[in-house]
Amino acid sequence: MTSHCDFPLRVRYAETDQMGIAYYANYFVWFEVGRAEFCRQRGFSYKQMEGETESFLVVAEAYCRYHAPLRYDSEFVVRTGLKQFRKRTVTFSYKLLGPGGQSTYAEGHTVHVVTDRSGRPKTFPEKYRKLLTNGQ
Amino acid sequence: MTSHCDFPLRVRYAETDQMGIAYYANYFVWFEVGRAEFCRQRGFSYKQMEGETESFLVVAEAYCRYHAPLRYDSEFVVRTGLKQFRKRTVTFSYKLLGPGGQSTYAEGHTVHVVTDRSGRPKTFPEKYRKLLTNGQ
Amino acid sequence: MTSHCDFPLRVRYAETDQMGIAYYANYFVWFEVGRAEFCRQRGFSYKQMEGETESFLVVAEAYCRYHAPLRYDSEFVVRTGLKQFRKRTVTFSYKLLGPGGQSTYAEGHTVHVVTDRSGRPKTFPEKYRKLLTNGQ
Amino acid sequence: MTSHCDFPLRVRYAETDQMGIAYYANYFVWFEVGRAEFCRQRGFSYKQMEGETESFLVVAEAYCRYHAPLRYDSEFVVRTGLKQFRKRTVTFSYKLLGPGGQSTYAEGHTVHVVTDRSGRPKTFPEKYRKLLTNGQ
Repeated sequence: MTSHCDFPLRVRYAETDQMGIAYYANYFVWFEVGRAEFCRQRGFSYKQMEGETESFLVVAEAYCRYHAPLRYDSEFVVRTGLKQFRKRTVTFSYKLLGPGGQSTYAEGHTVHVVTDRSGRPKTFPEKYRKLLTNGQ
Repeated sequence: MTSHCDFPLRVRYAETDQMGIAYYANYFVWFEVGRAEFCRQRGFSYKQMEGETESFLVVAEAYCRYHAPLRYDSEFVVRTGLKQFRKRTVTFSYKLLGPGGQSTYAEGHTVHVVTDRSGRPKTFPEKYRKLLTNGQ
Repeated sequence: MTSHCDFPLRVRYAETDQMGIAYYANYFVWFEVGRAEFCRQRGFSYKQMEGETESFLVVAEAYCRYHAPLRYDSEFVVRTGLKQFRKRTVTFSYKLLGPGGQSTYAEGHTVHVVTDRSGRPKTFPEKYRKLLTNGQ
Repeated sequence: MTSHCDFPLRVRYAETDQMGIAYYANYFVWFEVGRAEFCRQRGFSYKQMEGETESFLVVAEAYCRYHAPLRYDSEFVVRTGLKQFRKRTVTFSYKLLGPGGQSTYAEGHTVHVVTDRSGRPKTFPEKYRKLLTNGQ
C-alpha cells in the first residue's frame, strides 16, 4: 500500500477571489478533503469514526506554504500523508500537485488533537488507530 | 419598535470571486447574519433558542434577486423582516441596501421549518414565538 | 445526447454547520459546479468562454427548495439542465439527487445575464450559444 | 498610535461545522478581515492600494495555532499587527481574543509577497509603505 493518498480536485468559481486565483483559506478545505480520502484509502471513513467512537480530530495547528497560484477550473491533486502519529495527536501532511505530479502548488500540514464530543482530549480509538497507521 | 432590523456589513475579500464581485452564494450567508440580528433586536438570540428548546429553523426555501453587484470592501446594510409567521413555518425577507438606503443591491427571502434535533417538524416554541412576533 | 448533465459530489466537512447538515448556501456552490460541468458536457469550458469572449454569466436570480438534509460525506449527484435560453439571459435548473437518482435532496434554478467585464449586458457569444444549446 | 489593530467579529452560523465549533479554515478569513482593518487604521484601504498601484499582497505562507474553540454567535476580537516589513514581503501577525482580551482563541501569521496583476514580484509601493509602517 502506498504511504500517501492522491485525490483529484478542481478549483470552483466560489473558491476564487478578485485576484483571479484561489483564495488562500480554501487550501485548508482541500486539505480536509484529502484527510477524509486518506482515511477512506486506509479502510474507514472519518464520519464513521466520529459516529461510532465519539472521537473528533480537532485541529490544533494548520500551516500552508503557497508556491504557485491555482486558477479557476484548474485540476490538481491533493496528496495526503500521515506525518506523525502519537496517542493523542496526529499530524497530516499535504501537497497540492499539478496533474501528473510535475508541479507543486502548495504544501502544508495540520496537527489534530483527539477529543470527545465535549472537547476533552482522549486516546485515539484502537480500531481506527490500526487502520490509520496500517497496523503499525 | 420598527418592523425590520438593519445590520451593517462589509464585503470580505474571501467573498469575492474572479469576476471581481461578491460571489452569489454569499448573499445567503448575509441573510443568515440578518436573521440572527433580527432575533437579537426582538430580545433573544437564535443560539439561545436552539440551545434551550432544541428547536431548529431548517431552511426549506431560499431565494435571491440580484440587482447590482457588490464589490470588495463595500459597505452595505442587510435589512431583515418577518414576512410570515405560521405555527410550523417562518418566512424572513431581506434587502441588501447601500449605506443610507438609497440603493438596493439584492432582495430575497427564506422559508424555514421548525424542527427538533432529529429533523422532525415541531411547533415554534411559545416563548420565542412571542418575542419574534412582538407578542402578536 | 442527454438533455441534462449529472455530476457526482460529496459533502465536505467545511460545508456542514452545527445543525449537523450541509449549510444552505453551499447548495448554490454545487449548482455552480453543475453549471460548469454542463458546459463541459456540451463541449466547452465556462472558463474558456470567459477568457475568449469576455462574456460573463452574472447571476440575476437564484432559488433553491430543500427537500431533505444532506449530511457530511454523503454522495449525491447534481443534475443540471438548460431551462431557458434567450439572447441575453440563460436559466439553468438543478436537482440534487441521491446516488441512483432515487431521492431528491433539493432542486432549484439560477437566472444569468450575459455581460461584458464592466457589467454591461451583451448578447450571448454565437459560438458558445450553439454549443450550449446543442446547435438549436 | 497603537502598534496593533483590534476589530470585533462574531461567529456566523455558516462558519460552524458539525463539530459545533467554527471550522478551522475560517480563521484565515478572519485574519484577512483583520489585515484590511489594520490597513484602514493606518490610513488607507487595501482595496485602494490594489486599485491605484496594481499591487497585490499574494499570500505565500499561512499559519494558525488553535487554542480554544470558537462557537456560533460568540463575539471575539481579531488583533492584527505588522510583524515584519521587507521590500517585497510583509508578515502580519494575528490573535483572536475573547471580549476584553482575557482569553486567546487562536494566533497565527501570514506572509505576503507584493506582486503586480500578472503575479510578478515587485516592490511595495512607497506611498503605502509609509502608511503601513507609520513612516518608518
